Amino acid sequence: MSDAHLVETRLSSEQLLRGNFLDVRRDHVSLPDGGQATREYVVHPGAVVIVPLLDDGRVIVERQYRYPLQQVILEFPAGKIDPGENHRDCAMRELAEETGYRARQWAYAGVLHPTAAYSTEFIEIWFARGLYLGERHLDDGEFIEVLAQEPAALDAAAARGELTDAKSLIALMWLQKSQSGQWPLSWVDVTEAEQR
Amino acid sequence: MSDAHLVETRLSSEQLLRGNFLDVRRDHVSLPDGGQATREYVVHPGAVVIVPLLDDGRVIVERQYRYPLQQVILEFPAGKIDPGENHRDCAMRELAEETGYRARQWAYAGVLHPTAAYSTEFIEIWFARGLYLGERHLDDGEFIEVLAQEPAALDAAAARGELTDAKSLIALMWLQKSQSGQWPLSWVDVTEAEQR
Repeated sequence: MSDAHLVETRLSSEQLLRGNFLDVRRDHVSLPDGGQATREYVVHPGAVVIVPLLDDGRVIVERQYRYPLQQVILEFPAGKIDPGENHRDCAMRELAEETGYRARQWAYAGVLHPTAAYSTEFIEIWFARGLYLGERHLDDGEFIEVLAQEPAALDAAAARGELTDAKSLIALMWLQKSQSGQWPLSWVDVTEAEQR
Repeated sequence: MSDAHLVETRLSSEQLLRGNFLDVRRDHVSLPDGGQATREYVVHPGAVVIVPLLDDGRVIVERQYRYPLQQVILEFPAGKIDPGENHRDCAMRELAEETGYRARQWAYAGVLHPTAAYSTEFIEIWFARGLYLGERHLDDGEFIEVLAQEPAALDAAAARGELTDAKSLIALMWLQKSQSGQWPLSWVDVTEAEQR
C-alpha cells in the first residue's frame, strides 16, 4: 500500500522569514509525477488545548481578542509547547497560567492539525478534572476573560455560528463523544508536586 | 457589554513577506492596558470545505500529501476562495475540480477559524447531495486520491487518531449533528447551468 503516487520529496529548504513569532520556510519539492514545485509553510512548535471540567458539569472557557480576525472569540484554554516541554506539563502550565485552575486528573484525548496546507502545527487535546483554583499568571500582552459554561450552551453557540475556533469545536466534539461513552478517555492522577 | 478590556487596536502595519503563496504581516497594536505589542499573521483569502453525500449514505473524502506534516492525511474536499468568488460557487468549483462530482443540492452549515492566533483564514462548511460524476481538473502540482467512506468509518478513524485534519473533524461533527437533527441544514436546488 505505497503512497508513492501522492508523496512529495524535499529538494532544498530556505528560511523566508524569522519574525518575532512566525518562522516561515520555502522548500523546493519533487512531485509524484517527477515535476517540481515550491511549498511555503510556517514552522510551529505544536500546542495543546484543554477541556477543564468543573465538578458541577460546566467547563472553563475563555474569551480572547484574536487580532488576525479582529474579534473576540470563545475558546478553550490553549497554548504553545515550550522547547523540550512534556506535552501534559504544557497543558498543566497553560491551564494554570491562563485560568488559575489546577487539576487532579488528566486525560489525553487526541491530536488535530489546524492548517495542514501551510503550517506544521499540531494541537493535542487534553481533559482536566478535579479542578481547584490557584494563582493565575498571564503572559505579557495577554488579556483573557475566563468563564464557566454548560456544555449544552457551547453546543448551541456552535450551532448558531458563535463558536468558530477550530480547536475548540473539536474539543467540544471530544467532550460530547467522551460523555456519551463513544470515545472513552483514560484518566491519570497528578499529584500536587507535579503541578506548578 | 463592552469588550474594551480585551480589544487591541492597529497602530501600523507592514508586509513581512509576499511569497508565492504566503502573505505575512506584522502590525503594531495598542493593548487594552495602554501597552504596545506586535502581532504577526498570515493574510488568507478564506476557504471552503465540502461534505459530499452519496445516495448510498457514504461520503466522498480525499487522501492528500500535506507537505508541512510530511504525511498523507484524510480530508474532505476543500479549497481557497478566488478573488471576488461567491462562496457557494467556490464550493461547487472545488468539488468538481478535485473529485469530478457535481451536486444538485447544496446547504451552508457554518464557518470555522483554523488558526485564530496567526491567520485571517476562515473556512465555510458546505454540504452537497444529489451527486453525479463529470470531469475532474486538478490544479498543477495537486495529487489527490478520491474515495467513498461510511460516516461510521470516519468516526472510528477520528477516535483512533487517524483523522486529524481540523476542518474535516468539524465537517464530520456537522455531518453527525445534521443527521441526528440537532443542527439542521437548509438545502437549496442548484441547476446544471449554475455549475461548471
